[in-house]
Amino acid sequence: MQKQNGKLFVISGPSGAGKGTIVNAVMDQADPSGTALSISMTTREPRPGEEDGVNYFFVTKEEFRRQIEAGGFLEYAEVYDHYYGTPKSKVMEKLNQGKDVILEIDIQGALNVKKAFPEGVLIFILPPSMEVLRSRLTGRGTDAPEVIERRLSKTRGELAFIDRYDYGVVNDDLKEAVETVRAIMRAEHARVDENLHTLIREKYGEA
Amino acid sequence: MQKQNGKLFVISGPSGAGKGTIVNAVMDQADPSGTALSISMTTREPRPGEEDGVNYFFVTKEEFRRQIEAGGFLEYAEVYDHYYGTPKSKVMEKLNQGKDVILEIDIQGALNVKKAFPEGVLIFILPPSMEVLRSRLTGRGTDAPEVIERRLSKTRGELAFIDRYDYGVVNDDLKEAVETVRAIMRAEHARVDENLHTLIREKYGEA
Repeated sequence: MQKQNGKLFVISGPSGAGKGTIVNAVMDQADPSGTALSISMTTREPRPGEEDGVNYFFVTKEEFRRQIEAGGFLEYAEVYDHYYGTPKSKVMEKLNQGKDVILEIDIQGALNVKKAFPEGVLIFILPPSMEVLRSRLTGRGTDAPEVIERRLSKTRGELAFIDRYDYGVVNDDLKEAVETVRAIMRAEHARVDENLHTLIREKYGEA
Repeated sequence: MQKQNGKLFVISGPSGAGKGTIVNAVMDQADPSGTALSISMTTREPRPGEEDGVNYFFVTKEEFRRQIEAGGFLEYAEVYDHYYGTPKSKVMEKLNQGKDVILEIDIQGALNVKKAFPEGVLIFILPPSMEVLRSRLTGRGTDAPEVIERRLSKTRGELAFIDRYDYGVVNDDLKEAVETVRAIMRAEHARVDENLHTLIREKYGEA
């Protein structure tokens, strides 16, 4: 595959669409020397078995706030009194090593990443269908019908955000969806952009 | 694969880059019900074994000129007193059937197609390297060294047109190049565009 710098691929979409499963499958099939997962930074305590720099980068609130001030995050959010964010320097480091970086994140986070880093490629994972999503949620037996309906209506509203994404992948069939994400990653490396111009200059000399 | 209307993929680039070989390999691997080759229209006589509607659409000069007047071509050119062109209606018919159409054409033709049909996806096939191209031409033993140098210099000049293309694929390794073209075709069907919006409306109802 023709490669120079890595590219950032943001895998996002409504909850229940199956983005986590897709990301895991893509990572399983990827060459680890060419693709890395983005690791979030957080101020929450590590849980048993969690390792710093593997599951998260664990930092204090003071350190996190300092990095917010310094513009060190592609995006961050405060959830239940803890910060979570995507450290820009860690992502850039991998991209400069020629590695693609995959970042799994919710819709709000993805839109913030695009603002901070417009070269990022946003992929929206769509749930198989509203019916499948409803039956999944009903099947769990944990939520009251009105909770399920509220969630479905939220998901339907979230679909409108796809206009701010580059690609949309329907998760009807996991294997097909993973194949499409892989194709997007490959195709993006063939885009006519600065990366490709560098390759052309190197290969053929000045045009 | 998620599909609605077909898309037009224009495979183009300098002569000697290997676009014909790539197109043949892509067509060999494609599902014939989902991908079709664009057939040119010409005013030259059919050669033995050539069939109308298979190798070319054979028409008279009067008919060809009538279709030029009617805006019936995505592009056309006059070569040695004969016309050659890409009939728009034939391409549109296949796209509307949901088939992707592959059109192999030179650089000038590709740029004209993009003008007439901006939705067309332009893929530039790059030769492995100037050295490989030179040794290929020299190896044939048919051209004088100055002819070869002139041709190489023309090819280098043509590389500048890549800026008007969507993708560039280096034909270093045929298998890899074919895989990249296939990935581009798959990825383009996941682009957030009118096609995908139609799919979303059908699948999830109005957002």
